[in-house]
Amino acid sequence: MTAAETAQRLDFWFDFASTYSYLASTRISSLAAKANVAVRFRPFLLGPIFKAQGWDSSPFNLYPVKGRHMWRDLERLAVDLGIPFCRPDPFPQNSLLAARVAVAGLRQGWGEDFSIAVFRAEFAESCRIDEAATLTAILSSLGIDAKAALDAAQSDDNKLRLRAQTEEAQRLGIFGAPSFTTEGGELFWGNDRLEQALAWAKRTERLPRA
Amino acid sequence: MTAAETAQRLDFWFDFASTYSYLASTRISSLAAKANVAVRFRPFLLGPIFKAQGWDSSPFNLYPVKGRHMWRDLERLAVDLGIPFCRPDPFPQNSLLAARVAVAGLRQGWGEDFSIAVFRAEFAESCRIDEAATLTAILSSLGIDAKAALDAAQSDDNKLRLRAQTEEAQRLGIFGAPSFTTEGGELFWGNDRLEQALAWAKRTERLPRA
Repeated sequence: MTAAETAQRLDFWFDFASTYSYLASTRISSLAAKANVAVRFRPFLLGPIFKAQGWDSSPFNLYPVKGRHMWRDLERLAVDLGIPFCRPDPFPQNSLLAARVAVAGLRQGWGEDFSIAVFRAEFAESCRIDEAATLTAILSSLGIDAKAALDAAQSDDNKLRLRAQTEEAQRLGIFGAPSFTTEGGELFWGNDRLEQALAWAKRTERLPRA
Repeated sequence: MTAAETAQRLDFWFDFASTYSYLASTRISSLAAKANVAVRFRPFLLGPIFKAQGWDSSPFNLYPVKGRHMWRDLERLAVDLGIPFCRPDPFPQNSLLAARVAVAGLRQGWGEDFSIAVFRAEFAESCRIDEAATLTAILSSLGIDAKAALDAAQSDDNKLRLRAQTEEAQRLGIFGAPSFTTEGGELFWGNDRLEQALAWAKRTERLPRA
């Protein structure tokens, strides 16, 4: 591949527990197609990254005023985007199993559809994504052998893959979700930066760091 | 005033030390004019609000990975907005005196121009806004009697006004800057929400809270 070709890819880093990752999941495929940028889904776990910053839960729980704003912000954004939104209970959901299934699915071609469906189940349909039954229902609705998928997800190799992906996120300086990284080494944090990240994925000139 | 008229005002809450408040200060007047929304400048101090969350400095200093992203994010946003940007040293700047002068100036009709000029001095011209000389130069360039303005800023009444404004910010649930509040009680956090806040300032129907 030439440099110009590799510059046209954007990595989409998300944790299934992340509210703003849900918003990004509803927008990224159509926006990327319009921008002619290939997107790679990169599920990872925020837990170890938050821990490294001294947080044992979501900052939206640790800082209640920030949390109050977030829930209202999400209600407003969902209205503007024309998408359903409901507040998960508990929050954050344990996203480990869903992330493992997504990692397995992304190697088999159904990971993107599965990921989008998990976000929708959690944030639009009040499902608990930490329950295997929820994931089984999603897999079946996508025509995937749920038992085989869950077995693949729980294999040692696959567990290591998710761990390595989380370590890669940390090495890239990722501290929240969603995040977007370009082949050129740019990191963008937040659903608010999705359009900008897609535009920068296509830039050929570099912006020097001050 | 009727309900519809009061709904057309947006309060712009900022701390002069805040990087993203600088971005908002370069955009708010023209965007508000286009949206036909009256904006009220509300300088306040983030220090006491951060302290209430257990932070003794900017979260961008306390969480270095977050800080690294912010500086790069600002460089990129400044390019996209076509505005100059430089990193203040030290960061954050002590914004107390500038905030007091702004509060005094907003009662005398020159507070908005002064505020915009302070942000520009700090983030585009590498000036230290904690030095009276910087503020004196700004005031003089605006044709204002600098000594009288600084005296008014340091009066007991004026100090209390800034303190009351900071307490009001806290009561409104403000936890960062810039923030925007509507007469209808909506709080928006961040330069990224400026357009949305202006749109919501004009909404007549309410969105129920979930």
